[in-house]
Amino acid sequence: MEDVNTPVTVRYRPADCSIARAMDLLGERWTILVLRESFNGVRRFDDIQQNTGAPRQVLSARLAHLVEQGVLRRVPYQDPGQRQRYEYRLTDKGLDLYPVLVGLLQWGDKYLADDGGPPVTLTHKGCGEPVRVTMMCADDHELGSAREVRPVAGAG
Amino acid sequence: MEDVNTPVTVRYRPADCSIARAMDLLGERWTILVLRESFNGVRRFDDIQQNTGAPRQVLSARLAHLVEQGVLRRVPYQDPGQRQRYEYRLTDKGLDLYPVLVGLLQWGDKYLADDGGPPVTLTHKGCGEPVRVTMMCADDHELGSAREVRPVAGAG
Repeated sequence: MEDVNTPVTVRYRPADCSIARAMDLLGERWTILVLRESFNGVRRFDDIQQNTGAPRQVLSARLAHLVEQGVLRRVPYQDPGQRQRYEYRLTDKGLDLYPVLVGLLQWGDKYLADDGGPPVTLTHKGCGEPVRVTMMCADDHELGSAREVRPVAGAG
Repeated sequence: MEDVNTPVTVRYRPADCSIARAMDLLGERWTILVLRESFNGVRRFDDIQQNTGAPRQVLSARLAHLVEQGVLRRVPYQDPGQRQRYEYRLTDKGLDLYPVLVGLLQWGDKYLADDGGPPVTLTHKGCGEPVRVTMMCADDHELGSAREVRPVAGAG
């Protein structure tokens, strides 16, 4: 196997990297699983807690952090006879994380699923066909792998 | 803003989810930053350590874990007058994580970059145009957002 590419000649301070910044915000297993629940339409603390298995105190901190960072927003609701509570919904900033989650799903399906296959498949609402995450260039070529990408110095 | 979708009616055990399994393997900030270095062609322990800022002991454990899981492989090298050492290269399984990393980069560029813009841009080697991560269906429709996706029960 050839290597992916030769070392990048672009100089940048690694701490400026957008991946590093994104991971400062997301870099924790529970956070990604909370977002999975959000994309599945699960909005209430107890449901998120049950589906992720996150300790309540950890979950509470993660949700607060995601709200503070503008990834989730708190929306009040009130069940009959209950006090007012909050549910958690994705903002547009949160919604834009979907390709990252689907990318993880796709990779996990390929390499980590049981022999029976993955438990969930994503389809296009419009036509019912299965959905994949992929890389496209502005000239609409689909890129098959990392080997077809060249990093260049950006504006920053 | 409308919500992304109504709760998923597909029943599955959340622990079976491929995202959960992927995050068991990747769910840690340093791991993602190590992979960033690998995709940038940085292969040697000291260089990875310097660029990520990971504590040496943590980095050593992360690299061993990624090798054990088949994401990286160790390749011996020897500089003149030095003892044999190992560098770390992506396997095919590791290379397939590229869309996840590019998805994080793209999201970070959009929401977390400095005013001057992102430090690195990815281009298509073939034509020089900038590269984006996106979702496509098997019928070649490009999906604009999570709202266009419907989860259905998979094989597993």
